[in-house]
Amino acid sequence: MNGKTLTKQAKVVIVGGGFGGLYTAKDLKNTSVEVTLIDKRNFHLFQPLLYQVATGALSPADIASPLRLVLSHHKNTKVLLDHAIDIDPEKKEVILDNHEPIPYDMLVLATGVSHHYFGNDQWEPLAPGLKTIEDAIEIRRRIFMAFEAAEKETDPLKRQAWLTFVIVGGGPTGVELAGAIAEIAHGALAGDFRSIDPKEAKILLIEGLDRVLPPYPPELSAKAAEDLRHLGVTIQTQSLVTDINDHVVTVRQGEQIKQINSRTILWAAGVKASRMGKILAERTGAELDRAGRVVVEPDLSIPGYSDIFVIGDLANFPHQGERPLPGVAPVAMQQGAYIAKLIKQRLQGETLPQFVYKDYGNMAVIGQNKAVANLGFTKLSGFLAWFIWVWAHIYYLIEFDNKLVVMVQWGWNYFTRGRGARLVTGVGEGKRKTKPQETSQESTEKAISVTR
Amino acid sequence: MNGKTLTKQAKVVIVGGGFGGLYTAKDLKNTSVEVTLIDKRNFHLFQPLLYQVATGALSPADIASPLRLVLSHHKNTKVLLDHAIDIDPEKKEVILDNHEPIPYDMLVLATGVSHHYFGNDQWEPLAPGLKTIEDAIEIRRRIFMAFEAAEKETDPLKRQAWLTFVIVGGGPTGVELAGAIAEIAHGALAGDFRSIDPKEAKILLIEGLDRVLPPYPPELSAKAAEDLRHLGVTIQTQSLVTDINDHVVTVRQGEQIKQINSRTILWAAGVKASRMGKILAERTGAELDRAGRVVVEPDLSIPGYSDIFVIGDLANFPHQGERPLPGVAPVAMQQGAYIAKLIKQRLQGETLPQFVYKDYGNMAVIGQNKAVANLGFTKLSGFLAWFIWVWAHIYYLIEFDNKLVVMVQWGWNYFTRGRGARLVTGVGEGKRKTKPQETSQESTEKAISVTR
Repeated sequence: MNGKTLTKQAKVVIVGGGFGGLYTAKDLKNTSVEVTLIDKRNFHLFQPLLYQVATGALSPADIASPLRLVLSHHKNTKVLLDHAIDIDPEKKEVILDNHEPIPYDMLVLATGVSHHYFGNDQWEPLAPGLKTIEDAIEIRRRIFMAFEAAEKETDPLKRQAWLTFVIVGGGPTGVELAGAIAEIAHGALAGDFRSIDPKEAKILLIEGLDRVLPPYPPELSAKAAEDLRHLGVTIQTQSLVTDINDHVVTVRQGEQIKQINSRTILWAAGVKASRMGKILAERTGAELDRAGRVVVEPDLSIPGYSDIFVIGDLANFPHQGERPLPGVAPVAMQQGAYIAKLIKQRLQGETLPQFVYKDYGNMAVIGQNKAVANLGFTKLSGFLAWFIWVWAHIYYLIEFDNKLVVMVQWGWNYFTRGRGARLVTGVGEGKRKTKPQETSQESTEKAISVTR
Repeated sequence: MNGKTLTKQAKVVIVGGGFGGLYTAKDLKNTSVEVTLIDKRNFHLFQPLLYQVATGALSPADIASPLRLVLSHHKNTKVLLDHAIDIDPEKKEVILDNHEPIPYDMLVLATGVSHHYFGNDQWEPLAPGLKTIEDAIEIRRRIFMAFEAAEKETDPLKRQAWLTFVIVGGGPTGVELAGAIAEIAHGALAGDFRSIDPKEAKILLIEGLDRVLPPYPPELSAKAAEDLRHLGVTIQTQSLVTDINDHVVTVRQGEQIKQINSRTILWAAGVKASRMGKILAERTGAELDRAGRVVVEPDLSIPGYSDIFVIGDLANFPHQGERPLPGVAPVAMQQGAYIAKLIKQRLQGETLPQFVYKDYGNMAVIGQNKAVANLGFTKLSGFLAWFIWVWAHIYYLIEFDNKLVVMVQWGWNYFTRGRGARLVTGVGEGKRKTKPQETSQESTEKAISVTR
């Protein structure tokens, strides 16, 4: 089915301007196909650095590239700032939320994932996850306002709750958030308060499995845990969160149930596929995995439809019979590049062998000078891993002015341990989110029933 | 009354962390007084560059300095992130919104101003003004989303309304916004769209008096107008806005009444004193001017209270019997420095001559390489004025990392005409604001009655 020939002016519609969608569009430059990239937002977001926005090290614009700007010189490419809500695979149309149909000859779905609360969606306002710029600004607000509230609080127990930060999930995002919050407490804010010592902050990282960074080799997990502890993070493994309410996280470790008083709870525990996966399954019968991701063919198309492709975090690509490929930027980038190449081959009536992921390794940063990297042929930690992490991330930032500004900002932050972007904005929005009357009450009741 | 002696541990309470309040606090470093700076926000905002955030040239954090960080080494200074809602001048207390009283020996009020719609507060959601970071992000959203909406609109009349930008008020903020929007339309966005040409955008600057930049010498106003026209801005002077609704601005010029279809209307026409002025007047009998500003004594105190000072935009300082001093950063900075000096003198039982404003001139920027500057001894325009403007603004940015990042960002923007910070965030918030059912209806009714 890979061998279908495309006409020269074939319409390629890409839904989603993340790594998968953008890299597909980028690699279709100077081809004869008409490309339409649909995204709800007017920018591509460099997700791997989002936690730095959430912790006041970078500004949103530093990790966002306007999609129109990135594709400005792609004269065959149109950017549509719109929301795709449906697909008609028989008519070959994507339907926008104003019901306008966008016809396609080839469809690339790259709408990614959102947070997954495992059936406890009422936890979302209480323990926000980190997927969007708005999430990052809200988390930034909560972190820095917690120290402000502690400064004003005279009751020592309540103050401790403000100074307790719980991060649920010990994957890369959880590790990066925990490390960054620890550095804020011990570094950036150290001398800024008069009634509290930010160093009294407790940062708890809770992981369900037996170690942090479970997909990494055990020795790197151990090294990451050591680095985190050194920064002042308390790690609690083999622990499940059974309830969350406004001020209390309930954690079960084996038989033991513990309640932690915390005013700042962050969610880094799971993701589920965006709604487009479900829509696609309904319209085409495509198979979804437990997280709602679309199980794809070796060429990233879906069974029975050689003109529909799913890439990036939304796709479940059974990697050489093993576990599906992880939801990381390099997978999405390579899949985007693969699709672009496949389209070019089809234009010439040729085929392309199946997609093969070239794994250059994984990296997670813990703090300044501290990271772990599994590069396949070697495992690194400490300064060298951190140094590679820094340059790899600057290298992959899309726009050159982002690279420049991020380099300057990081250089400055490095020598001052500064968090210049710690301004709290949009307070109104956040306040509404913090105390949703019903949810609080519901989960308080739940907390009681669980702990009894 | 200037001569009152202060005890060594006197409590100085400053309300407001803008230029006035912050410069008072900064200059009280290493004194024996106890300083408390109260602000609702956790950062000092460099207001003169706010229009650059609104037009996507800079990020919020670039022009915001965390108050705690700025005052971190002032060991006699405490920052309170709180909202002062009242004053008790007899008990000498400032009341916070949780009713907590903060006692003072000397009180400095520097709470600034907000927008003034001259009795038409229903216009506020329809024509936002530019005072806060949130305002800037909302205006940025409206500007860039207008081009997006125009790209999608097929009806030529509706498309023109999306491509029409009306700025009400030809003072420095209005001039800077109009110039920046023109540069966006003709520069940054020029090649980014497929269905529209952003150069078709109409930018209208409406001013009630007979020229833009009314407080400047006429020849500089003329030069600014020429530069604006060259950038593509249409200037309409001696014109009053008589009504605004969601899509239509009604403008009266003499006998002529005109309706302009525009989806982006920005307010730069007037300011009024913040609520603290009224509270102070009620509690002390202090006189307010028409804009609600507090009329102060030659030493910036208020009549009958030698321990209460009002500075910055909130103060009406009758300048050598002439018009009150303008609401600009240099006035507030010098008044802050004066108050700090006065306090130091009082500590030694000495007095200080009255406040004298040293006017180094005014500057307004129109666009790249284009500005006007009235330096008193000379008047400048064009590149030289712009160059001085750039360096003066970088010089006065509070934190060194802001200086550094702004320099890099400006350098980049200069050579690429870029607007990297054009990301649109917090869409939900903005959407709610755009279409307040009642207000729209009300003002539509008004529009009809006015135009009939």
